[in-house]
Amino acid sequence: MPLLPEHISALIGALSKLPGVGPRSAERIALHLVQADPAAVQHLATALVDARERVRLCDTCGALTEKSPCGICTDSRRDAFLICLVERPVDILSVEKSATFRGKYHVLGGKISPLNGVEPDDLRIAALERRIPDEHIKEIVIALGTDVEGDATSFYLAKRLAREGLRLTRIAHGLPAGTGLEFADEVTLSRALEGRREF
Amino acid sequence: MPLLPEHISALIGALSKLPGVGPRSAERIALHLVQADPAAVQHLATALVDARERVRLCDTCGALTEKSPCGICTDSRRDAFLICLVERPVDILSVEKSATFRGKYHVLGGKISPLNGVEPDDLRIAALERRIPDEHIKEIVIALGTDVEGDATSFYLAKRLAREGLRLTRIAHGLPAGTGLEFADEVTLSRALEGRREF
Repeated sequence: MPLLPEHISALIGALSKLPGVGPRSAERIALHLVQADPAAVQHLATALVDARERVRLCDTCGALTEKSPCGICTDSRRDAFLICLVERPVDILSVEKSATFRGKYHVLGGKISPLNGVEPDDLRIAALERRIPDEHIKEIVIALGTDVEGDATSFYLAKRLAREGLRLTRIAHGLPAGTGLEFADEVTLSRALEGRREF
Repeated sequence: MPLLPEHISALIGALSKLPGVGPRSAERIALHLVQADPAAVQHLATALVDARERVRLCDTCGALTEKSPCGICTDSRRDAFLICLVERPVDILSVEKSATFRGKYHVLGGKISPLNGVEPDDLRIAALERRIPDEHIKEIVIALGTDVEGDATSFYLAKRLAREGLRLTRIAHGLPAGTGLEFADEVTLSRALEGRREF
């Protein structure tokens, strides 16, 4: 006889696929939930499905949003001629928390990685190139991670995006090497933004 | 403008109520989920609700089960005259994992705690007292926690359950496996010494 009822095992299996949730945490959460208030469980299930259904990517910048264009793209108080280029939608959140950047964003959607079959054409580079003349962009701050692929992608973009009248900068190496934006604290990110330099 | 779309914030709020999930983990999980395969998110939501709806407590022993009486209560290969008394349904899982106990269980549903308003009548003691003659129980192993309330409850039960022909035992208290004396606190060591046995 299995130790746990089938539906608890199934729930543990589904929970342990979440980031940062190991088998022990998944078991603890599942055993809590099957004894929790049914309304609270239903609330969590609804929140899950609602969030997944309502949240989409902004057609302009690629941010997570419930309406496109997103709140940042339509915010007239932000510098419309300055774009911060990030790898993933969640990186926007990290930069916003540093409260140092008041421009708009562009999500690249990944890093160039020939070994993983990610070529420049798989990224949202062409969309960014269209935004440069359309939105009269004056500066692009490249804010990718500092691992090998992030570095390579940054240098590739510095070459490809270079054009008359466009300033290309990169956030400073306040970011610890070999890591992504999501692990950086606000102060580090804030300093990295303030210390950005010309290519 | 809030940093995150409303439905992501709602999801983070619901997730951070789970045991062992702090605000940072909740944010990480939520941001993962809103970009995950919609079918996987639906699967998780269904697993949540299904588990909560299908899993109930065994009418006899109080274990988590999908049918009552549970698989342990109906297992004819187990010693039907031996009961292990635990505080919560999940404690059964811990004892089962030790693979040392082959009797049945009884879940008390808590510990006596006058400060928190938990009186003996709030626990499943009367149900246990009915089981003793009904199932011809010969031994009850009290396996509650070793905090003050667990100790007090154990002593209370040892008195209340005492009757002719019933053996009342308590799981041993001592040094945990795989550790040295230097890591044991005074109370643990004192109990380990008191509970010493012949080789």
